[in-house]
Amino acid sequence: MSLSGNALVGQSGGPTAVINQTLVGVIKAALAADEIGAVYGAIHGIGGILAGEICDLSAEDPDNLEVVAGTPSSALLSVRLKPTDDICRRIFERFKQLDVRYFFYIGGNDTAETTHIINEMARADGYELRCFHCPKTIDNDLLVTDHCPGYGSAARWVCQAFMGDNLDNRSLGGIKINIVMGRDAGWLTAASALARVFPEDGPHVIYCPEADFDLARFCAEVEAVYRRIGRCVIAVSEGVHGPGGAAIVDLGEVDSHGNRQLSGSGALGDFLADTLKAHMGKAFPDQKHRIRADTFGYLQRCFPGVVSEVDAAEARRAGEAAVAAARSGEHDSGSIAFRRAEGAYAVDTFVTPLSTVAKDTKAMPRDWLNEAGNDVVEDKLMPYLRPLVGALPAIGQLTMQRIEMP
Amino acid sequence: MSLSGNALVGQSGGPTAVINQTLVGVIKAALAADEIGAVYGAIHGIGGILAGEICDLSAEDPDNLEVVAGTPSSALLSVRLKPTDDICRRIFERFKQLDVRYFFYIGGNDTAETTHIINEMARADGYELRCFHCPKTIDNDLLVTDHCPGYGSAARWVCQAFMGDNLDNRSLGGIKINIVMGRDAGWLTAASALARVFPEDGPHVIYCPEADFDLARFCAEVEAVYRRIGRCVIAVSEGVHGPGGAAIVDLGEVDSHGNRQLSGSGALGDFLADTLKAHMGKAFPDQKHRIRADTFGYLQRCFPGVVSEVDAAEARRAGEAAVAAARSGEHDSGSIAFRRAEGAYAVDTFVTPLSTVAKDTKAMPRDWLNEAGNDVVEDKLMPYLRPLVGALPAIGQLTMQRIEMP
Repeated sequence: MSLSGNALVGQSGGPTAVINQTLVGVIKAALAADEIGAVYGAIHGIGGILAGEICDLSAEDPDNLEVVAGTPSSALLSVRLKPTDDICRRIFERFKQLDVRYFFYIGGNDTAETTHIINEMARADGYELRCFHCPKTIDNDLLVTDHCPGYGSAARWVCQAFMGDNLDNRSLGGIKINIVMGRDAGWLTAASALARVFPEDGPHVIYCPEADFDLARFCAEVEAVYRRIGRCVIAVSEGVHGPGGAAIVDLGEVDSHGNRQLSGSGALGDFLADTLKAHMGKAFPDQKHRIRADTFGYLQRCFPGVVSEVDAAEARRAGEAAVAAARSGEHDSGSIAFRRAEGAYAVDTFVTPLSTVAKDTKAMPRDWLNEAGNDVVEDKLMPYLRPLVGALPAIGQLTMQRIEMP
Repeated sequence: MSLSGNALVGQSGGPTAVINQTLVGVIKAALAADEIGAVYGAIHGIGGILAGEICDLSAEDPDNLEVVAGTPSSALLSVRLKPTDDICRRIFERFKQLDVRYFFYIGGNDTAETTHIINEMARADGYELRCFHCPKTIDNDLLVTDHCPGYGSAARWVCQAFMGDNLDNRSLGGIKINIVMGRDAGWLTAASALARVFPEDGPHVIYCPEADFDLARFCAEVEAVYRRIGRCVIAVSEGVHGPGGAAIVDLGEVDSHGNRQLSGSGALGDFLADTLKAHMGKAFPDQKHRIRADTFGYLQRCFPGVVSEVDAAEARRAGEAAVAAARSGEHDSGSIAFRRAEGAYAVDTFVTPLSTVAKDTKAMPRDWLNEAGNDVVEDKLMPYLRPLVGALPAIGQLTMQRIEMP
């Protein structure tokens, strides 16, 4: 059933490298729809709706929109704000004022929850509104969908980073810890496994939040790798924890969604490096070890120039699919999800209820990690991951055929 | 004068994204030279010469050599070892055993010093040996040369990282500190300025070791930016220091060249973030600020897929030029340097004595930084930097034309 009115689109939460592909997918599809009048942009998401900071997206140059689509991070700017009943009430006032009948909100599960609350309020109010959530998250932790736009590019960045770091570590030796984003799910940390090209390439151990982390075991496992090949590259999720979710290092800060600060600090990496220095000092009392930690931090989520082509194309499709779903009237709300076809890589989009995506997140299956919880199971992860990341830079090695010394 | 004998090539010090271009430049040029017999590779630099870990580079597949050339980090593996007289004596024994008459050593100023010591010993011994140093360093701090192979690619990485981080910060606000490599010179940190595309793009303040760093002034300058635009992206060199070189945070570790550990720890970033949190808490008692620090660490020095084409081509030329200089016999030793032509970007190579490159390093001219020491002078830096980095990813912005609220 055709519904006449205006459309409003916004972006929420942390950025990705391809979130503007989704935005431009929404904008261009909405501008092309006869029953949709104005296409508005909410500046800083629902924050902009509340503040009356709203822009006219039909005024944007179509060619420039393509440059914006290829630019990382939220072009409409973003927000971290959990909507209360009062906030939702004020958002509806705006929607009514502006005759907004189509609302597209791009973000993660917190954003889906926001969209869901607004949708429920619209229903209760008897206000006809089509509310669609477009997924994005580098964490790949949304329920229902096969994978999330934004993940492939972030995973690509993590792979390239580990490729370089493995080469660095191989040339100079020592032990290197890299801390990767991922609050509750190890998807991004696990992607580091794809960096391995040659036998003995790192990461040599991989720690994800899906398996409990134990400091003593960690030290013993790193020591074993070091004894075997004289070096070790380590991937650690920022979200690793002991049994029952016990924090390894707790920085204390909590955001408005109750999430505790993990990124933007080198504390976990430095703590693990110090712990390993003490351990290796005892295990090898006569040797000096070069033990370093890098925290990848915010770099991995929207690095211009390191983008998966598949991810970019799918992010665009998610935006277009949201507008198509809203126009069809088959659903008055939902979240766009991907379904993977059997055989050669291909995806379909479908609509899943907002309630199925809001609130909870999806961890990696535990059996995609080995029993010891210190590596991925490549046979399970790689077929899933490879098509999302795309072809990686070529890495070569010399054969280094030793001469016989005279 | 044509000198018959074998060639030996090695790599030393930290890796770069293009150091293997130089290596392959040396290998291919040496293999093509009639008077050069075997072309040997020292595995782990002079460490491999001492240990008898030497490989036959004529056995490498030429096509694979091109893949290796495009692979970051030292393909022959690297070493950090300051040669003593005893070590040099043992190196000559090897050279005599293997009839090595051409020695090519790729690295920074420490490597040039090593090459210089070996060259002096060869002269004193009356052993005819042509010793050439090929420059590489992401720090761009070698004397004499206009710039160093490896710098352009690392600078490119830093630019792309700041482009992404500025977009991230723009979308969500707050204060973000990024710590960039560079022990004594701010070249790499200064390159962050090239990330600015639009007015108000970050980095908004840039701190290099060429200007004394003062914590109180730093806090005040960040606060001023925050008061003006509501956010701030900060570039800080890991090597910043107070008057007389006083460390801001000292980690205590020192390597065999007497260099103190700066990288591989988040300590400086975390310290600056904590200091800013305290300062901003007092300046804005009613607001909560999002203040984060990322330490770019080892990522910036050899990230596959983020390579400046000019840098790669020049690194190859440096290797080829070293072999050409050695063959010509015009000099029995030297370091390859670049001279920039007037007008449109172009470089020539020339040979400078090893003693002019060894030991000391070159900081940025102080007047390439502004008087306050918190930003670069774009008119001076940009014409120098742009051609080395190459065209950066396109960054777009929406015009966001506000609608009048009803």
